[in-house]
Amino acid sequence: MAQRSRPHDKRVLVIGLGRFGSSLSLELVAHGWEVLGMDSNPRLVQAYSESLTHTMVADATDDEALRQIGAHEFTRAVVGIGTHLEESILAASLLVDMGVPHIWAKATSRRHGRILQQIGAHHVVLPEHDMGERVAHLVSGRMLDYVELEEDFALGKTRAPRELIGRPLGETKVRTKHGITVVCIKRHGEQFTYATADTVPQKGDVIVVAGKTDDVEKFAEFA
Amino acid sequence: MAQRSRPHDKRVLVIGLGRFGSSLSLELVAHGWEVLGMDSNPRLVQAYSESLTHTMVADATDDEALRQIGAHEFTRAVVGIGTHLEESILAASLLVDMGVPHIWAKATSRRHGRILQQIGAHHVVLPEHDMGERVAHLVSGRMLDYVELEEDFALGKTRAPRELIGRPLGETKVRTKHGITVVCIKRHGEQFTYATADTVPQKGDVIVVAGKTDDVEKFAEFA
Amino acid sequence: MAQRSRPHDKRVLVIGLGRFGSSLSLELVAHGWEVLGMDSNPRLVQAYSESLTHTMVADATDDEALRQIGAHEFTRAVVGIGTHLEESILAASLLVDMGVPHIWAKATSRRHGRILQQIGAHHVVLPEHDMGERVAHLVSGRMLDYVELEEDFALGKTRAPRELIGRPLGETKVRTKHGITVVCIKRHGEQFTYATADTVPQKGDVIVVAGKTDDVEKFAEFA
Amino acid sequence: MAQRSRPHDKRVLVIGLGRFGSSLSLELVAHGWEVLGMDSNPRLVQAYSESLTHTMVADATDDEALRQIGAHEFTRAVVGIGTHLEESILAASLLVDMGVPHIWAKATSRRHGRILQQIGAHHVVLPEHDMGERVAHLVSGRMLDYVELEEDFALGKTRAPRELIGRPLGETKVRTKHGITVVCIKRHGEQFTYATADTVPQKGDVIVVAGKTDDVEKFAEFA
Amino acid sequence: MAQRSRPHDKRVLVIGLGRFGSSLSLELVAHGWEVLGMDSNPRLVQAYSESLTHTMVADATDDEALRQIGAHEFTRAVVGIGTHLEESILAASLLVDMGVPHIWAKATSRRHGRILQQIGAHHVVLPEHDMGERVAHLVSGRMLDYVELEEDFALGKTRAPRELIGRPLGETKVRTKHGITVVCIKRHGEQFTYATADTVPQKGDVIVVAGKTDDVEKFAEFA
Amino acid sequence: MAQRSRPHDKRVLVIGLGRFGSSLSLELVAHGWEVLGMDSNPRLVQAYSESLTHTMVADATDDEALRQIGAHEFTRAVVGIGTHLEESILAASLLVDMGVPHIWAKATSRRHGRILQQIGAHHVVLPEHDMGERVAHLVSGRMLDYVELEEDFALGKTRAPRELIGRPLGETKVRTKHGITVVCIKRHGEQFTYATADTVPQKGDVIVVAGKTDDVEKFAEFA
Amino acid sequence: MAQRSRPHDKRVLVIGLGRFGSSLSLELVAHGWEVLGMDSNPRLVQAYSESLTHTMVADATDDEALRQIGAHEFTRAVVGIGTHLEESILAASLLVDMGVPHIWAKATSRRHGRILQQIGAHHVVLPEHDMGERVAHLVSGRMLDYVELEEDFALGKTRAPRELIGRPLGETKVRTKHGITVVCIKRHGEQFTYATADTVPQKGDVIVVAGKTDDVEKFAEFA
Amino acid sequence: MAQRSRPHDKRVLVIGLGRFGSSLSLELVAHGWEVLGMDSNPRLVQAYSESLTHTMVADATDDEALRQIGAHEFTRAVVGIGTHLEESILAASLLVDMGVPHIWAKATSRRHGRILQQIGAHHVVLPEHDMGERVAHLVSGRMLDYVELEEDFALGKTRAPRELIGRPLGETKVRTKHGITVVCIKRHGEQFTYATADTVPQKGDVIVVAGKTDDVEKFAEFA
Repeated sequence: MAQRSRPHDKRVLVIGLGRFGSSLSLELVAHGWEVLGMDSNPRLVQAYSESLTHTMVADATDDEALRQIGAHEFTRAVVGIGTHLEESILAASLLVDMGVPHIWAKATSRRHGRILQQIGAHHVVLPEHDMGERVAHLVSGRMLDYVELEEDFALGKTRAPRELIGRPLGETKVRTKHGITVVCIKRHGEQFTYATADTVPQKGDVIVVAGKTDDVEKFAEFA
Repeated sequence: MAQRSRPHDKRVLVIGLGRFGSSLSLELVAHGWEVLGMDSNPRLVQAYSESLTHTMVADATDDEALRQIGAHEFTRAVVGIGTHLEESILAASLLVDMGVPHIWAKATSRRHGRILQQIGAHHVVLPEHDMGERVAHLVSGRMLDYVELEEDFALGKTRAPRELIGRPLGETKVRTKHGITVVCIKRHGEQFTYATADTVPQKGDVIVVAGKTDDVEKFAEFA
Repeated sequence: MAQRSRPHDKRVLVIGLGRFGSSLSLELVAHGWEVLGMDSNPRLVQAYSESLTHTMVADATDDEALRQIGAHEFTRAVVGIGTHLEESILAASLLVDMGVPHIWAKATSRRHGRILQQIGAHHVVLPEHDMGERVAHLVSGRMLDYVELEEDFALGKTRAPRELIGRPLGETKVRTKHGITVVCIKRHGEQFTYATADTVPQKGDVIVVAGKTDDVEKFAEFA
Repeated sequence: MAQRSRPHDKRVLVIGLGRFGSSLSLELVAHGWEVLGMDSNPRLVQAYSESLTHTMVADATDDEALRQIGAHEFTRAVVGIGTHLEESILAASLLVDMGVPHIWAKATSRRHGRILQQIGAHHVVLPEHDMGERVAHLVSGRMLDYVELEEDFALGKTRAPRELIGRPLGETKVRTKHGITVVCIKRHGEQFTYATADTVPQKGDVIVVAGKTDDVEKFAEFA
Repeated sequence: MAQRSRPHDKRVLVIGLGRFGSSLSLELVAHGWEVLGMDSNPRLVQAYSESLTHTMVADATDDEALRQIGAHEFTRAVVGIGTHLEESILAASLLVDMGVPHIWAKATSRRHGRILQQIGAHHVVLPEHDMGERVAHLVSGRMLDYVELEEDFALGKTRAPRELIGRPLGETKVRTKHGITVVCIKRHGEQFTYATADTVPQKGDVIVVAGKTDDVEKFAEFA
Repeated sequence: MAQRSRPHDKRVLVIGLGRFGSSLSLELVAHGWEVLGMDSNPRLVQAYSESLTHTMVADATDDEALRQIGAHEFTRAVVGIGTHLEESILAASLLVDMGVPHIWAKATSRRHGRILQQIGAHHVVLPEHDMGERVAHLVSGRMLDYVELEEDFALGKTRAPRELIGRPLGETKVRTKHGITVVCIKRHGEQFTYATADTVPQKGDVIVVAGKTDDVEKFAEFA
Repeated sequence: MAQRSRPHDKRVLVIGLGRFGSSLSLELVAHGWEVLGMDSNPRLVQAYSESLTHTMVADATDDEALRQIGAHEFTRAVVGIGTHLEESILAASLLVDMGVPHIWAKATSRRHGRILQQIGAHHVVLPEHDMGERVAHLVSGRMLDYVELEEDFALGKTRAPRELIGRPLGETKVRTKHGITVVCIKRHGEQFTYATADTVPQKGDVIVVAGKTDDVEKFAEFA
Repeated sequence: MAQRSRPHDKRVLVIGLGRFGSSLSLELVAHGWEVLGMDSNPRLVQAYSESLTHTMVADATDDEALRQIGAHEFTRAVVGIGTHLEESILAASLLVDMGVPHIWAKATSRRHGRILQQIGAHHVVLPEHDMGERVAHLVSGRMLDYVELEEDFALGKTRAPRELIGRPLGETKVRTKHGITVVCIKRHGEQFTYATADTVPQKGDVIVVAGKTDDVEKFAEFA
C-alpha cells in the first residue's frame, strides 16, 4: 500500500458522471488531475469523453468490470451515483473490499449516508441537504453567501454595514461588539483581498466575516 | 409593495419538500423564521408537519391553489422542486406572475437554471454542480474544506503546514510567498477563532486561508 | 444581424414534425419556402424526408445539436413540439439565447403559452383552444365558418338569409339594420368573389359578412 | 325527430373536456347555449363544473352511460376526445347509432378523420393540421392573420402597403392589379370597420383583403 | 374490377398473424390457397415464413405500406388484428378505401364489430363470443358438439339415445316426436356417414341431429 | 360423488367473465341453467350481476376463495380466463385438486391447452384457433358457414348449385357424384327444414350438405 | 443488555413475510416462539394475521416505524426481505444501529450478502444458492438428500448399498474402506433410528452416512 | 430409452441460470458432471459460459428450441426458472412431453409446486420455504445448523452441553434421557469426525445429534 500514497499520484476514479460526478471531474481535470470517469450510461460517457482524461462505459456494480479498469489500484475514488441507492451501495461495497484507501460517496438521504459509512466509505457527501442548509442563510436576505466550516463556526459574505463604513476596521471593535472578524473585503469593481486593521470599508463594499454561527447570523442583520 | 419589505417579515414559502427544500426549511425554522412548506406529495408534507410552521398538500403548478395559500403575499419564496423540470418551471412562472419579489429556485442542469432566469426567477441554485466542484478540492486530499466566494477568490480549510508551525503568523510572510492570508485557526480540542499576526500555529492545528483560487490550491499542497 | 432580414431569406427552421409542425412545413414548402424540419423521432423525419427541403434527426433540447444544424443563422423558427412541455420550453429557450429574431411556438395550455412568452418566444399559438372557440360558432348551426380577426371583429360565412335575396345589397341596409357588411359572395357552382352594392344574392348563395362579433352572431341566426 | 330541429333547441352535448372541448364549451356558454360537458376524468369535470351548464363524469364509450345522460335526445353533439383514437371512435359510433343528427368530431390525423366520416360523423375538425397550415402563412412574415374560406379563396390581414396609402381605395385598382378586394380596415387605435371605395388608408392601418389564395399571398408581399 | 372476380383468383391477404389469423391462414394454404400473411411483429412473421405462401413484416395501419404489398389488388382480405381495436379499425378503414371487395374482420366486442360494419367491412367475426355460446351447449353435458346455422336452427352431435337404438330411423318418428332429424351417424370405430330411413343406430353410436334450437337442446337430454 | 351426477344439477361455475365466459354464461342462463360467475375484476362482475344467477368478485387463484364460494361442490366448471396463462393454470389446478368432475378450460395456444390437459382439465377449447380454421372456409367465398364435426367429416352451408335446382334431390345423385348428402334446406323467406329425397331445391335456396371435408369443399365450388 | 439474553426471551421480529419469512415464522410459532411479523404489503400481513403471534403493516425502512413497534427491544430479528436489495439493506442498517444483538438477513446474491455483513448483520442466508448446491447432489441421482455441515464434512441420505446388506455394520469396515460412518438407518415402513455396530441393513433400507464431502459423494455411487 | 440409463451418463440439462440454477450447475461441474446450461437472458449465459460445460441462449418455452439443443436426449433436467411461473410451467410441460425421465423443478409457492407435479415433474424444490423452515431452528439460538431428513427425524449441530463434557458418550445415556444420538463431533481447531461410545466431548466442542425432531429441539436447549 505504501506506493499508493506516493505524493504525485494525481489520479482519481469517478464512478457516475451525473451532475455531481461530472462537475467534480471537470474541476479536478482543470486543476491538473487525471480522472478516469465511468458510467453505465453510454450517453453520459460520450458527453465527457473529450473533457476527462479517460472515460469508460462500465457497470460499477460488477466486480469483474471494476477490476478490469484497475479500480483497486486507485488511491482515491468517488462514488457519484446518487439516485439509485442500490447501485451506489454495491459500488461502494466493492471499492471497500478492494481496499481503496480514500473513498468519497454521494448520498441522497441521511440513512443512505449512514449505510455508506457502515460499509466503510471514508467520506460521505449530501449535496441536496448541504446546499439546502446553506441557501437557507441567503433566503433570509442579509447574506450573499454563507458557509459553515465547523458545527459552530461560519463564514458569511455580506455588504459592509453602515457602522463599519469610513473607519479603519481596527477602530470598529466588531470583534468585541459582534464576536466576528472581517477577514476579506471586495471593493466595488475590484477583487477580494484580505482585510487588515487598517482597511477602511466604503459604502457598497462586500466583506467576508468569520465567527460563531449565531454571531455571523446576527451581524448580517445589520447589513 | 412597501409593506412587503418591512424589516420583520420573516416568512418564507418553500415549494417542494424534498432533500433540498426540507433541509432549507428546517434550517430557516431553526433560525426563527416562519416557513410555509408545500408539496404535492402527502407523505412528505406529513413528514414535516410538526417541524415546520405551516405545511400544505397542494399542487404548485395550479394557479388557483397557489393563490388560496396566499403565495402572492410572500416576500420570499423558494422553488425546491428539482427533479421534474416541468413542475419547477410552472411553479416559478406562476410566482413570477404573482410578483413575488425574491424567488430562489433550484435547478438540476445549467439549461434548467437558464430557463428559470429567463422566466424571471431571481436566484438559481445548482446543488449537484456546486457540491461536485467543491468536493473536487477535497478529493485532491490536501484540503479539509473549500469554498469559492467569487469566481477567483476562495477559502480553504487545511492542516497548518510545517513552515507555519512554531512562529507568529506575522513573521511567516505567507502573504508574500503564497498570496494567501490565514484568517482563522482551530487548536486541537478547541473551536475556531480568528488569526492575528501574533498567532503561533502548532502541529495539528487546522487553519482557514483566503486568497486567489490557484494560490489557495497550491498552498494546500504544502499541508 | 443585418443579413438576416434580407428580403429574400425564405428559410424556416421547424422543430417538431408532429401534426402541427408537418402541416405548417408542407404549406410553407408549397408556397416556395425552404424548410429545415427536425425531430428527435426518426420515423417522423423519415416520413417527411422527401416533401421538405431538408430534414434531420436531432434533439432540439441539445445546444450543440442545434448549433450544428445552424439554428442560430435562421431568421424564423417554429417550435412545434407541443406535447412535451419540457422539450418545448428547452428548445425555445435555446433559440432565444441564440438570438433567432422570429420565434413561433405552439403551446398546449395557457400557462405553457405564458412560459414561452416569459422565456422570450415572439408568437405563441394554441391550436386546440383556438379551434375549439372557432368550431363553437359552427356548432350553433347557422354559420358555415367563422373567424375572429380581432377581439371584437369577426367574419362569418353563412347562407344568404331571405331578406337579402333578390335585391341589390346596396338596397338592403344590412349595415344599418344588422351592423354587418357583406364582403364576399359565392354563387352556387361558382367561386367566391367580392360583393358590391350592386350584387343581388340568390337563394342558396353563400356570403361572408364582416362586423362586430355579436352582430355577426346575430345576423347568422336569420340565415 | 321533428321536435329536434325546433329553432330554440340551444343545447349541445360535448364529450371530452380537454383543450379543444373546454374552449368550445366555454365559447358556446358565453353565447347563451346550454352545454352538457362530460369526460371520464373527474378532475376535468370538476374544473368546468361551475362554468358549464351541466357536467358529468361518464364513460362515453359505454352505451348505457350515454343513454342515461340522454345523449340520444340531443340535436348537436361534439366528440372532443382526440388523443385516444379508440375512445373517439367508440363514442362517435354510439352517437351515430343513436341517431344524433349533427355530430362534430375532432381528429388527430387524416386517417382518424376519415374513419370518423366512414362511421357517420357529420363534421370532422383537425385542429393541429388546420392551425399548422394557417400559421404557415404568418411565419412567412407578411400577413398578420390568414384564413381560407374555400379551397381557393382566402382572407388575409396585413398592414396597408405603400401603394394604397393616401388614396381612396376606389382609385387604387387593387382589384384589377392584384385580384384582391379590401374588405375591412382598422385605423391605429380604433376598431375594424368595413372598407368602401371612399376609404383612404393611412400608414400603419391594418386591412383585411379577400381574393384567390395565391393573389392574397402575393399581395401580402408588398405590405 | 372485372378481373378481380375471376374464378381462379385463389389469393387472400391476411393482416395479423396471431392465433386467429395464423390458424385461418394455415387452413387456407392446406386447401390450396395462396396466402400473403403480414404482421408488424417480426417474430410472428418469422414463425410462419415457411408455412404461408408469402409473409411480410409491415404496418397495416400505414396506407403506403399496404399499397406497396399490393393490398388493393386482392379480392379477399382478412383483418385478424383483434387485440388492438385501433389498429384493427385503421387497417379495415384503409382496405375499405382501397375498394377490396370482400373484407372479413375479427372483432373482440360487439361494439368493435359494429364499428367495423359502419366503416364498411363485409363480414365480422367474434371468436370469443361465438365459441362461448357454442361451448355453453356442451357444458350442459348432453351434446358432444353444437352449431347454430341460423338464429333458430341448429345441429347437435350426441350419443344415440336409447329410444333410437335397434330400430330403423324411419320407424322411430323422431321427427314427429322431437321435431328433429338425424342427418349423420358414426358407428364405433368408423367414420361419419349420412343417415337414411333404414339406418339402425346401435348403442354407442354418435349421431348428428338437425332441428330448431330448442328441439335439438331438448332431444339431447335424452341421450 | 353420486349426488353430483343427479339429473337435475343444472349449476355451472364460470371463472372469468371476459368475452368467452360471459357469452357462455348468458347462453346457459338463457337455457335455464344456474350460473355462478366470478371474476377478479369488479367491473366485469358488476356488468353481469343482473343477468347471471349469482356473481362474485373473487380471486380464482386463491384456494380459500374458491372454497368459500363452494367451487368444490359444482359438477361443472368453466375456466374462461384465457389471457393470463398463469391465472388460467392456477385456477384449473385448484379445481382439479377439488375433484370437480367436469372442467372446461379455454386456452390461447396449443401448449397452453396441453398444460391444461396435463394438469387434468377434461375439455380444452381454443376459440381463436377454431374460429380461424372455420372462417378459412368462408373466406374462400363459396360457403356461407362451415363446421367440422370430426377430423374428416364436415357440414357446409351454401347456396343450392344449378345442378340441384328444379329436381327432387333423390334424382340428382349428389351422393354418388359428389360424396355429399343434402341434410337441410332453407327456402327464401322461410326457415331451415330437413331435406328428403322428394325435396326440390329452387334458385336462391340455401342448403346444408354433409360429407368428407374435401368433398364438402369441392361441392361448394359449384355453388 | 443483560436482560436481553434472559433464557426465556422467546420473541423474534420477522421483517418481510414472503416465502422465506413466512415459512420461518410459521415454523417458529409451531415451536412455541412469539413472532412479530411485519411487511409493507397489507395482503401478506393479512394472510398471516391469524397464524402469527402479532402482525403489522409497516415500512421497515422507516426508522420511526421500527421504533414504534419496539424493534430495538428484540433480541432476535430476521430480515426476510430479499427481492428488493435496497429495502433489505435499509432495514438491516436500522436494526444494526438500534443494537439488536442477533440479526439474520436473507440475501439474493453473494454481494448482497457481503454488504449485509459489512453493515453489521450477524448471520446471512442465501436460500437460492444453498438449495442449488444441495440439490446438485440429488440430481446426480445416487443420494436422496445431502447436507454440508462444514466446508469439508457432509451427511448423505442414500439407499443401503449391496456390500452393507445382511451383515452387522461393525463387520463391514465402511469407515476404513470408504471413510464414512453410517449414523442412522430407516427400515422400510419404519422411522429413522441411530445405527450401531450391531445394526444389520436390509435391502431397501435407507441410511444416513457422515464423512468428508468427497467420501460421501463417492460412497453414494455404490448405492 | 435403454441407452439413457447407462451408468456413466453424467450429463444434466439446466434451464434457468439464476441464483439457484447457477449454484446447482457449478456444484455439478465441480463434481465432474457435464452441464448444459441455458437461459433466455444472454447476460446470464455469458456469465457462466466459461465455468459450465456448455451454455446456450435459448427460450425454454419454445418446443423447437429445446429440440435443437437435444433436450429430449437428456436423462436428467432441472427447471431452475422460478420467478416467472408461466415460463417454469411451459418449460416443464415440454420436458415432460419429451419424456425426460428425471425432471427437477424449482417452485416459488406450494401451488406452483403442485402444478409442476400435476404436469409430471418428478421432483419439486422450494428453496425459500425450505430454507425458511431450516433457519427458524437457528434463530432460536441453540443450534448452529439443522436439517430435517424425514418429516419426523432431524439432525442438529450444536455446542456440546455441559452434561456431556468430560465423560465418554457411552456413559452419558443421552439416548435414554434425551432420545438423541451423538453422531459426529468436531474438536476446536479440528475437523468433524464420527463419534463413538468412547468419545469424550470437551468444552467448546461442536456435536451433531440425530433423533426425532422434537427431541433434537429440546436437547439443543441444554447446549
